[in-house]
This record gives sequence, C-alpha cells and structure tokens, in this order.
Amino acid sequence: MKILITGGGGFVGARLARQLLARGQLAGRPIQRLVLADQVAPPAALLADPRVEARVGKLLTQCDALRGEDVDAVFHLASAVSGECEADFELGMSSNLDSTRALLDALRARQQAGAAPTRVVFSSSIAVFGPDPAYPFPPIVGDDTLPTPQTSYGTQKLICEHLIADYTRKGFIDGRAARLVTVTVRPGRPNGAASSFFSGIIREPLAGQEGILPVDLDVQHPVGTVQRMVDGLIAVFEASREAFVGRSAITLPGLNVTVREMLDALEAVAGPAVRARVRAQRDERIAGIVANWPRGVVTPRAQALGLKADASFEDIIREYIADCRADNPAALAGLG
Amino acid sequence: MKILITGGGGFVGARLARQLLARGQLAGRPIQRLVLADQVAPPAALLADPRVEARVGKLLTQCDALRGEDVDAVFHLASAVSGECEADFELGMSSNLDSTRALLDALRARQQAGAAPTRVVFSSSIAVFGPDPAYPFPPIVGDDTLPTPQTSYGTQKLICEHLIADYTRKGFIDGRAARLVTVTVRPGRPNGAASSFFSGIIREPLAGQEGILPVDLDVQHPVGTVQRMVDGLIAVFEASREAFVGRSAITLPGLNVTVREMLDALEAVAGPAVRARVRAQRDERIAGIVANWPRGVVTPRAQALGLKADASFEDIIREYIADCRADNPAALAGLG
Repeated sequence: MKILITGGGGFVGARLARQLLARGQLAGRPIQRLVLADQVAPPAALLADPRVEARVGKLLTQCDALRGEDVDAVFHLASAVSGECEADFELGMSSNLDSTRALLDALRARQQAGAAPTRVVFSSSIAVFGPDPAYPFPPIVGDDTLPTPQTSYGTQKLICEHLIADYTRKGFIDGRAARLVTVTVRPGRPNGAASSFFSGIIREPLAGQEGILPVDLDVQHPVGTVQRMVDGLIAVFEASREAFVGRSAITLPGLNVTVREMLDALEAVAGPAVRARVRAQRDERIAGIVANWPRGVVTPRAQALGLKADASFEDIIREYIADCRADNPAALAGLG
Repeated sequence: MKILITGGGGFVGARLARQLLARGQLAGRPIQRLVLADQVAPPAALLADPRVEARVGKLLTQCDALRGEDVDAVFHLASAVSGECEADFELGMSSNLDSTRALLDALRARQQAGAAPTRVVFSSSIAVFGPDPAYPFPPIVGDDTLPTPQTSYGTQKLICEHLIADYTRKGFIDGRAARLVTVTVRPGRPNGAASSFFSGIIREPLAGQEGILPVDLDVQHPVGTVQRMVDGLIAVFEASREAFVGRSAITLPGLNVTVREMLDALEAVAGPAVRARVRAQRDERIAGIVANWPRGVVTPRAQALGLKADASFEDIIREYIADCRADNPAALAGLG
C-alpha cells in the first residue's frame, strides 16, 4: 500500500514514518511506498529507505496532484502550531483550514471518480478545549466535553474535525480524528507552540543548559511521549469503524501531571544539579494561553482501542534519554 | 446607521427588515440605510422604502466590495437550506462556509484598516445537534449540549459558529451566533428544507389544499414563529457582550411540540374539516433526517436576554393567519 503522511518531516510525522517502515505493514497490508509531504525535508535516515518519497513544499500546493494519485492511507499531521496561529491569523487559516479542505477535496474527487474512500487519520489537539464564561470548564476533559476553543489553532483543529466527520458521513473518505495531548519531551530547538516549554524545562537541563519555566509550578497538563502518540495514530487507523464508534474525534491518552511533578521526576532521574538548571521566568502571554488549557484528560474511547498513557513522568524522561542515545550513543553523556 | 442583512430577500430576512424599518432604530441608533443582499429580490413593499437598497446576486461575489464599505451592523442569514446541502455538497460548502468566511474576512479587513469591529449576528440552527453513536443523545438539547451534526448543513452552521467566535476573540468583529429553531408556519411554497413539512401540514390545509405528513405523529420538535426569531435576532444584536456571556452560540427559544399536538391545534383553530386535509405519506428520506433532530430545546441564555417561546401552537397558527390577512385582507377567507 501507499501511505501519505502530511507533516511527515516533523517530529511526530517522522517518528510515525520510522515506525511504519519498521512494521512493514499497516492494517495487514504491506507498505510499498511512504510519501512524506512537508515544508521541510524528512531526516536523512528516512530518505535512505527506498520506500520513502519526500515531497517538500506547502501542502496546499500539493493537493491538486493528489486527485489523480492512488493513495491508500493518509495520516494528516501537517499544521501550523498554536503560537504561530495566534501571531499570524492568515497563516493558521491557510495552513490548518484551507490545506485540510484541499486535501479532503482531493480525496473526495478520487472517491467520486470510483475509488474506495481513503482512510484518513487526522491529528487534532486538546487545544479544542477551553473555558467559556457561559459554562463551567471541567478541569479534566473527556471525549464528550463541549469544545469551546480559546485559540485560533484550537478553532481550526475543531473545524477540521467536523469536516472530517462530514466527509466521512458522506462516504467521501473513511476519516477519524484523534486529539493528541502535548507531546513531551520534544528534541531539538523550541518551536512556536505555546506548549514548547513543557519540553524545554526537561530537554535543556538534561543537555547542561538553562531551561526557562514561564508558568507556575501548579500548572497541570496532560502529556505523552511521541511513541504513545504514534501508537495512538496507528491504532486509530487500524480500528474498524465499529470499534472507533461514531465519527466524533477521540482523545488519545495522556499523563495528567503538574509542572512540579515534572521537575521532581527530572530530579529523580537526573539529579538535583540538573533540576537546578530550571529557572522560573513568568511569561504572561504563555501563562495566559496555558491557563485556558485542560488540566487533564479522561480517554475511555482510546482505552477501548487498547491505548494507554505513559506510566509516569520519570518513564517519559527515561524514554527521551533512550531516544537521544539511540540516535547518537554519545548524547547526554554528562548524565552518566 | 447602515445595516446589512444577508438573505434579506428571504422569509426571515425580509421580516427582520420590515421590523427594523418599523422600529427606525437599532441599539438606540437611527437606521439610515438597510442593505438587503440575496439571490432573490426582496418583496416590493420593502423596496418602496427609500432607506432600502437591494443587492441581488450571490453573497460570495459581493463580499470583496464590502471591504471598502462602512457597514455598522450585519445580520448574516443567507444560507443554502438543509435539503439542498445534502443533495449538493459543493453548493452547501460554497453558500454556507465560503460565503461566511468571505464576509468575515471583508469585515476583518475593515477592522484592520482602522474601523471599529462590526457587530454581526449569525443565524445558526439547531441542526448542529444530532445523535452520535459514541454518546447518549439528550432528547432536549441546551446551549451546552455537545454538537455532533448529522448533516452537511448542520456541520457548516457549526463551523461558522466557531469562525464567528474566533474572529470575535481576535477583535476582528463583534459576533454572536444564535441557533434558530424550525420556523413555522412559513408562507408560500415548500422549500428544499427537510423541515418544510412542519409548515406544509398547517399552511396547505388552511388554504384548502392537501397537506402531506412524511413522519410519524409522535415526532416532537422545537418550533417558533418568524416573529419570535426576529425578536431573538434583534435581542442578540442589542445585548451587551457581558449580557450575551462568552462567545459560544445561544439557542433561541422554541415551543417543543409533537406533530399530533400541531394537528390538534389546527383542528382547534380551524375545525376538523381542515385537519382532515392532512394526509400521512411517509417519506423515509425526510423521516431519517428528522429522526436525527432534537425533540426539544431548553434555552436559559436566551431567556436571560428576555426571550420567550410562543405560548402555544394554537397561537402560532393564529399568528400565521393574522400575518396572511395583514398582507391580504381576503386571505384564507374560507376559514371564517
């Protein structure tokens, strides 16, 4: 089968690609071709696999060509991140809404030309949730919590969820939307997401650098490793429609953890000197955005698909260290 | 002030226009100009008022020009109806989603050029609600019920609600979305809406013709007169942001009534011979759509704005008869 991953050059997309290549099959069908569409090229290790094809450029400009292409499966991960969407409204609308619609319309055109509906997994986000003054905001959100997004990013993700549901209802695609919790620990540099510090306060201290904490220690948030998210996206893809139940988005499991617990775990795994590299420096913009995010998730639908959150934040840190060393055995050598 | 009503040639839009002209003011400001944008021309009686300007044509083609125009208030009612959207997916997406976005972007351009955010009331619909197999579907829906639309029309309305909320959050507009219940009794001919029969089973028998009932007598649904909807749209416009509370859509009041109660009211108002003109002829397509609609509404937010449902279905029928006779004193003469 031929699989398209939009955002396939990004952190989650590249990890998903690596996992799919290692499995060799999806839903029981051998993977012949893996197309990674992104504005950036995928990691060299992925490109070295003869099954991989990279398409570098804006997704919006690539969708027309998809109307004539036999793609058996789509993981639609491409997205401008929350901070970018707040700073540049038009960028968010174009990257997140117009691109998704162009992709869905390309798949619809294929279905209307006689192809079977393409199975599509869309990565949404718990950013669809937020406090609305008209209603109480549950601290822990579930799949059936009323989404009242408080960011353009969350609004765009929610709109795309509903497009996916309606295109699925009409039989144009076989779509499923999965809301990801905040992925941590992300490697590399901070990105434009308001949630970037959730990785920074672990990643930078582990690397011997200062990590900036822009919010209070009492902030609680659902998080998970990239591996849990990839497991979730694949499970959602492989689920039968009956097992997925309905067409509404599901939330992937997350570990509901406070910043204080994150730092305690950092100390437990890497020692007090590493924790001491975290410096509190409140950022009102980020604190304001994060104050509107859920403090945790309950995920019965995902659990019914066999998915689980990470067992502890210490496990999350250890998995990050192991990932770094898998890529480079000399990484984080100072940790012993 | 200058007011734009999109869909201003339609049933609700023209009635809203008539009401605004009769009031002469909106939110305390005198009305100098009333622009009615629609694909059809407004009724001649409206055009005779020197304050009225008709713009006939697709809304989508009119939005660019709005970028340079001083409009103080917008009632955005233009919409393809539910039956049309199910039959022609692209028509619905264009008429309901693309047009709304083009309108909002025109208003955003004005705000970004220095104008105050334009106040916008968007007419949404209780079609945003529907049963999803993943969750119990409450028979009576409220403002905080999770919307899982089961039609393209409902999906498009819900998406527009979220666009309105986000454009408002960003300060581009001062938007409010109000979900209308099914308007009955509509005059004239049946339209493409799946709900059209709710008017037909009253209007046709009153006019001496056969009325076709395509669903069971036990179907219950929230309905209201056009006057209640117009009252609601104006109240939502005139509400302060504090009184509206938040940015989520509110549901306008409706009378929760069964088809059996509607026909009993018809008999009470017009006699058994009129009721006998209703003929049951089940239409599986319509019955299937209606089965996915709410059986009633609770509307605490609208009631906090002073809005009320019609007191009884008999009142609804009597108001319809009075409306017909206001337009034409000889109308429905056979009723005595």
